[in-house]
Amino acid sequence: MTGGVFLSFEGIDGSGKSTQARTLANALRGLGRDVVLTREPGGSPGAEEIRALVLQGDPDRWSAETEILLFTAARRDHLERTIQPALERGAVVICDRFADSTRVYQGLSRGDLRDTVDQLHTLMIGREPDITILIDMDPEIGLSRALSRRGAEERFEDFGADLQRAMRKGFLALAAGAPDRFRVIDGTGTTDEVFSRLQADLPELFTTGPTAA
Amino acid sequence: MTGGVFLSFEGIDGSGKSTQARTLANALRGLGRDVVLTREPGGSPGAEEIRALVLQGDPDRWSAETEILLFTAARRDHLERTIQPALERGAVVICDRFADSTRVYQGLSRGDLRDTVDQLHTLMIGREPDITILIDMDPEIGLSRALSRRGAEERFEDFGADLQRAMRKGFLALAAGAPDRFRVIDGTGTTDEVFSRLQADLPELFTTGPTAA
Repeated sequence: MTGGVFLSFEGIDGSGKSTQARTLANALRGLGRDVVLTREPGGSPGAEEIRALVLQGDPDRWSAETEILLFTAARRDHLERTIQPALERGAVVICDRFADSTRVYQGLSRGDLRDTVDQLHTLMIGREPDITILIDMDPEIGLSRALSRRGAEERFEDFGADLQRAMRKGFLALAAGAPDRFRVIDGTGTTDEVFSRLQADLPELFTTGPTAA
Repeated sequence: MTGGVFLSFEGIDGSGKSTQARTLANALRGLGRDVVLTREPGGSPGAEEIRALVLQGDPDRWSAETEILLFTAARRDHLERTIQPALERGAVVICDRFADSTRVYQGLSRGDLRDTVDQLHTLMIGREPDITILIDMDPEIGLSRALSRRGAEERFEDFGADLQRAMRKGFLALAAGAPDRFRVIDGTGTTDEVFSRLQADLPELFTTGPTAA
């Protein structure tokens, strides 16, 4: 229906997904493609305002249910105002996190809400990315990267190693359940090494030939 | 399950519902009842912030779908933080507008979303007031009241007579579909006259006897 392609990047903290998203955006721009690089939560002026409302202040001021509704409102706005217009003009949309992050986070913090999250997504969002790239990584490696980026000496466990392991498992389970949509990329090694794997797994984006634009 | 009673007031603009809600609150307080008088959209600190986010700025900045999600988030917060705690301690909660207003407004402005509104309510709110008091009034009378309150000379049609007629019809249709929950009160006459009708229609609130508190 649309000439564009909608890609999302998912992965645990420190997996390098944001770096890979940016690298892919630059590579595709170098090939002359129209690329929109965006992220969640946020990604449109209204969604950024909702993001600020959710993330500012006391962490307990919203219940899990209210927070899901606010993030779904932000996602709806992001989809309508940023993603869909870009897809309609034939752009490649690269989104750093999308609904799978909500599924994994909420599934871990409030597992009883997992069905609610899915029903709300079906009712109010109603679409998935065309391709979701999961940058997969052992949390021990991902966290040590994230920590070195902060220049800090905090112990690994302080940053929720168990949580990161559970999140990795959650993302891999989603990938296993939707193999047509997901590409699971090994996130170990240098940025270039990971990007080479990603390119090899996304031949449809890099083949020369007639493009939508 | 709860010792309290949850009442909502609904009606078109100028119907006098806010005055009747306040009058009822005062009368019940005079009988020694614990009463919480609240309103939507808003009614809790978080819900008031969401209300401000929705109502400020350009009226077109949110789509109907995003707006429904934001109002549902506000309602969820209002329910959790204000209404439910009051009901649990045995209070009478009197709410000026609740979900029926959303149903009628959205049903008129975007009729295609009526099912979505209902599904979202079932999924994320999941309860109705115990009693909904519809202050029913011919829009011609309601609007002339609203206009005289503003001290203005604007013509009736400028204030959307057709819209008010359609809203009245929408509220009456909801009442007909849920006769056990609704009490339809004729809103013509003085505040005292309307309140006498309301009292006569709510004997369970005014009978002396053992109270929950």
